[in-house]
Amino acid sequence: MNDAPTACLLIIGDEILSGRTQDANLKFFGERLGATGIRLKEARVIPDVPGVIIATLNTCRALYTYVFTTGGIGPTHDDITTACVAEAFGRKVIRHPEAVKRLVAYYGHMPNEARLKMAETPDGPDVSLIENRATAAPGFRIENVFVMAGIPSIARAMFEAAAPNLTGGDPVFSNHVDAEVREGDIAAELTAIQGRYPHVSIGSYPFMREGKPCVSIVARATDKAAIMASLGEVAQVMSAKGAVPVMETLF
Amino acid sequence: MNDAPTACLLIIGDEILSGRTQDANLKFFGERLGATGIRLKEARVIPDVPGVIIATLNTCRALYTYVFTTGGIGPTHDDITTACVAEAFGRKVIRHPEAVKRLVAYYGHMPNEARLKMAETPDGPDVSLIENRATAAPGFRIENVFVMAGIPSIARAMFEAAAPNLTGGDPVFSNHVDAEVREGDIAAELTAIQGRYPHVSIGSYPFMREGKPCVSIVARATDKAAIMASLGEVAQVMSAKGAVPVMETLF
Repeated sequence: MNDAPTACLLIIGDEILSGRTQDANLKFFGERLGATGIRLKEARVIPDVPGVIIATLNTCRALYTYVFTTGGIGPTHDDITTACVAEAFGRKVIRHPEAVKRLVAYYGHMPNEARLKMAETPDGPDVSLIENRATAAPGFRIENVFVMAGIPSIARAMFEAAAPNLTGGDPVFSNHVDAEVREGDIAAELTAIQGRYPHVSIGSYPFMREGKPCVSIVARATDKAAIMASLGEVAQVMSAKGAVPVMETLF
Repeated sequence: MNDAPTACLLIIGDEILSGRTQDANLKFFGERLGATGIRLKEARVIPDVPGVIIATLNTCRALYTYVFTTGGIGPTHDDITTACVAEAFGRKVIRHPEAVKRLVAYYGHMPNEARLKMAETPDGPDVSLIENRATAAPGFRIENVFVMAGIPSIARAMFEAAAPNLTGGDPVFSNHVDAEVREGDIAAELTAIQGRYPHVSIGSYPFMREGKPCVSIVARATDKAAIMASLGEVAQVMSAKGAVPVMETLF
């Protein structure tokens, strides 16, 4: 799993850090990138502060194969992501002709100056637009950075529009086995199983069901057979403790 | 708002980055820290990888007044936060006598070796336990770092237990005015209002209600009067566009 392309998600917006808005993009990107064979290695939530956005972007685009940003590409004064991305790359901001065309087609007339800000991108022949069927205002790609909207439905549509241009490695699969048992009662056995399956990432997640402590043991790997073999051993341990393990037959 | 104490939240866990689990801690910490007069400046979501946890913690504890971590302090092999925090501080891991006492009292007998891992902390007279009424397994504070559970109900209880020991600055207040108007139609006016209220952070958040585009303009500041004055101007702009602004009388 170590040679696969990597990714970082930058969630840009004061509203996430203030607690006003519950982020709904991280889970989506984690799932979809995993299925695409790209490992989401980190996510950073940062405020609408130019210096922070520029520095963080420059750090992360050097560390990871891909960087995805969400937030800050609308028409208002607090939408500063495009200007910051341009500055991070040492580029000028231009009004992208194709983006203007899409906005004109959507509104039926030339939009006002504020909305034309949504047609801005960094300058350069390598900058490509990311389609947005919802409101026409596009995202864009510059080198390994994908700049997307913060609104979840639009972020998702933009990701799907960009996905065909992503190069993934082996996709990661996962399955889980659940039982009404306390994780502390199977922890030693889990350690041993993890040791026997070094290429499977085994996670233990306790939860409550009808007031009773349960655990979900999740196995993640590129190798489905290894997932099933390791979870089979986990299920045996659970049974030995008198619990009834439940596992879906995913593959 | 610039001299206030700052904070960073480190969300530790493969399950968040894989998309298996929706994070539910960031919003809580953002809200509660803001009300406590501490500015949540950044959140980082990082995987269960020792080198990453150690390096990120050492970076962030130097940058911010406080660092809060969630996740990875349970009894299983994938719970590695305590060991990583100890290594980041150059300390040994010890079995904390008071934490053992709490676990024994909770279970009614000496817990097994896996559960005793939950009594581990870094060594040092400055390490203090953070109470956990739910399952007795405590979090801990070392210098400016607060190590907490990932399960939201427990993370919240631990934060409240630790909160009296936090030094906050002026609390940040916020209010918002909403209307059925497109943000692109008031963007120029918003820019002007933001210019007149430099100590108020004004954010524009579009949303759909019954299929119609609306916007919520949020003002955040330590000065309630400035919040109300700036939102009053926003409401006037909305009215001039023919919309009916709705604002709660919060203060």
